Amino acid sequence: MASQKILIIGGVAAGPKTAARARRLNPEAQITILEKGKYISYAGCGMPYYLSGQIHEFDHLYSTAYGVKRDPEFFKAERGVDVLTGMEAVTINRADKKVLARNVDTGEEQIFEYDKLVLGIGSNPITPPIENLGLKGVYRLNHLTDAVRIKEAMEAGEANDVVIIGSGFIGMEALDSVFSPMRAVTVVEFKETLLPGILDADLGQLLYKNLYEQGLEGRFGEKVLRLEGEDGRVTKVITDKGEIDAEMVILAVGVRPNVKLAQEAGLAIGETGAISVNEYMQTSDADIYALGDCVENTHLLSGKKVFAPMATYANRQGRIVGDNVNGGKSTFKGVLGTGVLHCMGLNIARTGLGEKQARDLGYDVETALISTFDMTHYHPSSSKVIFKMIVDKKTGKILGAQGLGKGEIAKRIDVVATQLYYGGTLDDLLNLDLGYAPPFSTPIDPIIHCGNTLKNKLDGVAKTYTAQEVQEKLERGEDFVLLDVRTPQQFNMRNIQDQRVQQLTLGELREKLDQVPKDKEVVTVCVMGSRAYEAARILEGAGFKDVKFMEAGMEGWPFDMD
Amino acid sequence: MASQKILIIGGVAAGPKTAARARRLNPEAQITILEKGKYISYAGCGMPYYLSGQIHEFDHLYSTAYGVKRDPEFFKAERGVDVLTGMEAVTINRADKKVLARNVDTGEEQIFEYDKLVLGIGSNPITPPIENLGLKGVYRLNHLTDAVRIKEAMEAGEANDVVIIGSGFIGMEALDSVFSPMRAVTVVEFKETLLPGILDADLGQLLYKNLYEQGLEGRFGEKVLRLEGEDGRVTKVITDKGEIDAEMVILAVGVRPNVKLAQEAGLAIGETGAISVNEYMQTSDADIYALGDCVENTHLLSGKKVFAPMATYANRQGRIVGDNVNGGKSTFKGVLGTGVLHCMGLNIARTGLGEKQARDLGYDVETALISTFDMTHYHPSSSKVIFKMIVDKKTGKILGAQGLGKGEIAKRIDVVATQLYYGGTLDDLLNLDLGYAPPFSTPIDPIIHCGNTLKNKLDGVAKTYTAQEVQEKLERGEDFVLLDVRTPQQFNMRNIQDQRVQQLTLGELREKLDQVPKDKEVVTVCVMGSRAYEAARILEGAGFKDVKFMEAGMEGWPFDMD
Repeated sequence: MASQKILIIGGVAAGPKTAARARRLNPEAQITILEKGKYISYAGCGMPYYLSGQIHEFDHLYSTAYGVKRDPEFFKAERGVDVLTGMEAVTINRADKKVLARNVDTGEEQIFEYDKLVLGIGSNPITPPIENLGLKGVYRLNHLTDAVRIKEAMEAGEANDVVIIGSGFIGMEALDSVFSPMRAVTVVEFKETLLPGILDADLGQLLYKNLYEQGLEGRFGEKVLRLEGEDGRVTKVITDKGEIDAEMVILAVGVRPNVKLAQEAGLAIGETGAISVNEYMQTSDADIYALGDCVENTHLLSGKKVFAPMATYANRQGRIVGDNVNGGKSTFKGVLGTGVLHCMGLNIARTGLGEKQARDLGYDVETALISTFDMTHYHPSSSKVIFKMIVDKKTGKILGAQGLGKGEIAKRIDVVATQLYYGGTLDDLLNLDLGYAPPFSTPIDPIIHCGNTLKNKLDGVAKTYTAQEVQEKLERGEDFVLLDVRTPQQFNMRNIQDQRVQQLTLGELREKLDQVPKDKEVVTVCVMGSRAYEAARILEGAGFKDVKFMEAGMEGWPFDMD
Repeated sequence: MASQKILIIGGVAAGPKTAARARRLNPEAQITILEKGKYISYAGCGMPYYLSGQIHEFDHLYSTAYGVKRDPEFFKAERGVDVLTGMEAVTINRADKKVLARNVDTGEEQIFEYDKLVLGIGSNPITPPIENLGLKGVYRLNHLTDAVRIKEAMEAGEANDVVIIGSGFIGMEALDSVFSPMRAVTVVEFKETLLPGILDADLGQLLYKNLYEQGLEGRFGEKVLRLEGEDGRVTKVITDKGEIDAEMVILAVGVRPNVKLAQEAGLAIGETGAISVNEYMQTSDADIYALGDCVENTHLLSGKKVFAPMATYANRQGRIVGDNVNGGKSTFKGVLGTGVLHCMGLNIARTGLGEKQARDLGYDVETALISTFDMTHYHPSSSKVIFKMIVDKKTGKILGAQGLGKGEIAKRIDVVATQLYYGGTLDDLLNLDLGYAPPFSTPIDPIIHCGNTLKNKLDGVAKTYTAQEVQEKLERGEDFVLLDVRTPQQFNMRNIQDQRVQQLTLGELREKLDQVPKDKEVVTVCVMGSRAYEAARILEGAGFKDVKFMEAGMEGWPFDMD
């Protein structure tokens, strides 16, 4: 085993990580990476920050923290790994344990032997059935060269009207890096809300409300049919509902696993279309491992296979494959779909199952949506955050959580992800001992506050409507009182314009209970939800029979965008 | 039960929280809070930010997020709770269920009946046996009035030489709020390192190194004997080792639970000296509950009783007592000693057991100390962080973690705290699905990186010395090679001055192996530890028999402070 040949196909993230770990464990192995592209071991996730100018040097995207470029010379000197760039693997001969590769420049072919083969061959951007994608001004954001081209176009002033097609992770990161109040930027999303695979529709609406206020134009439930151009340059995006001026188009409709090489070699492909691997990251051929964007993973909650091409999985799996090609038995247990991104000043994160996903899986779910501050409200750095949590009514198990806001979201979702790993219940969450000091949190952390609200709902202490439900009631013309308990100043800043709205501050409510009609349903509303909850309890205590409060208050209200 | 009398003694944090929850559950209860002080429901934890000027308005420390002062009128109007300030409870008559209280201004006595009594009577600052504590210029930082007095003194220019006695949470928060390069600030700590109850000694040393470089003077293992003054004002602090000029002295040697009232009423006091309660927060009298700083808690890892006066426990317990005085069965399971603070630009956090604590409890522990970036190193906001993790070798269970640095620490320690709640192992930690994007993390999160290092140590793949061990080897005059594999620039910036140091960059090492003496022990060192680990593996691969690397690199080296 000592001098075995470890051949790795793919040199972006999964491959180099595997090589580094394998080398540390086995000084004598012959480790070779074949990469068809020009760059290796680069930070694909860093492209948006290069585009936005936050990272000035292109080189930084493939340099170590100590400033050394991660090129083939680096891999040879520091890792003892042979890297061949511009070398595309063409076929795998499993019987003879050989890989035929071709130099992408010269066409020269070369055969590489292996004892263990590792496929870190990534994913490919999906090309949607849109006419004229070949026009100039049409970009993707999947490879380093894409980032360079977009940046050049922006610097050349060729990005005044930008249309981004798709609002998944890559679409939103592209948005974050190209958005400017000086540009007209439109996102066209085939589904009904932003980040449809990541955020539940209610959070997607709140996200859009915020981005809209910053100047983003969103088109939802709209399908791009074709592009139009002049002199070979794109000028318009034509959808099934209209047209949009476009000087730059960024295609971001997702990726699919790159499985050609594996499929042609007869390796098992899973139900998701990605390469099937066991918990040791072995394919159906025990001497061939696969990892990263080209494989499918097991969702720890649903038990189902999922295609989840995330950089963190590629890196963590690299360590596991590095162990196992050297005889180890390390395992990758599965994923929870945790994801986080930053877009136009907002932090966005999720873990576990979304509400609809959970319902589709047959769970009887309860949810809570809260708005609060990410640290003590009196601290000058405090910012608003929104959290949603989803729980299985039957077992009390938390199924997922999502967050959105200017404040700290990411690590609280990590806390929930940790919960989910252990199959923890809501009661467990409420017993967590999370750190508190004014610059970091509130005495009861926002994520526990969210859990408390959910528990109050399950216990029947808190009876709520979502903003969407209140909006539907208003639209249906139902007779009820929408009791706004904020201060007059807060009310005047922003309010729901409707005859059914009544104003009474929380401080007045106990004294003026007789002003609230007792024979009608009363829905209380405030800024973030806590005073409305208090008001609802006061009304119920006073004998009102049909009282609810609107979750997350006006902070959770996405319906006043023009 | 509906119209029962709930009497709450103490109006700072635990009491008001209890009252609010009890009221929401029971609209008809008669709820009364007695508070001997002037202010109620105030943010004691916010005092340092008021002192430092980050919070401008004193009122903000006891106002709601929507700007309403939390005074008795507020509690009456919004909560339906009667609050009597300046009213000190003197005795509890358990047989008759009555409390005798006295107006602190008029001396007038009044009797309050209860069905359920709640003690949220907090803690008192310890007065150490130091002579002349009555001099002017001597302060504490335990009550809002303390903060006001210190601020007035600073504004009057009476804080040029400041001595803080004690470096626990309150001492460090006082330091954070009074420190300025324009003042001479000294911390005198009886134990050997900063924050001795919170951080292990190695992190305490690294913390001090950083604060020292900013201008703090620390005196360790030093006991204050007396103060000296002129014209009734303090001028000097006299210790067992010398004297320090002092215009202002802040006493912060800790707090002890306020148990007088409970003790005199015959309620059980626990082994820690705090009030003993069960998981329902009931004292030895089932109709009397106690919570917050006056009670002892169960440590979830050691199973032992601990006195842990943290604001977050007071608040979480308030919810539980609010439930239970209304017939609920909510439980508080225990604590993990999670704590976090910000001091002079550094974030500091811990959870679970410290290394020494764990050893004292009989655990056979392994630890890892790492230095890394809190997000991708190429992101302009990335900052350095140090994490330490402690694991039980026998079971693989994680026992605790600590963090220190300018970057994000707090929420990663929360992730470990969540782990600890479930008794998770190191392998569990490595399987967590934490969110990644460049502005939030590294593809392998720092806390998982710490876990990987720990696993490498347990597996014998990583053999390390701590900085302290290397320093001891150097001081003992041992013959070994300290192989520095950083770039020459990095070496020249800061290095260990010793003949035994040899320089070879990691990139050169494979080619120049013959320059490293094979018959000596080799200890590799770099900036943060990762290149030194790589170098150690290269040397071992090349047949070197006795190789180790220094954990956390020069970032973990606290010994060059002058």
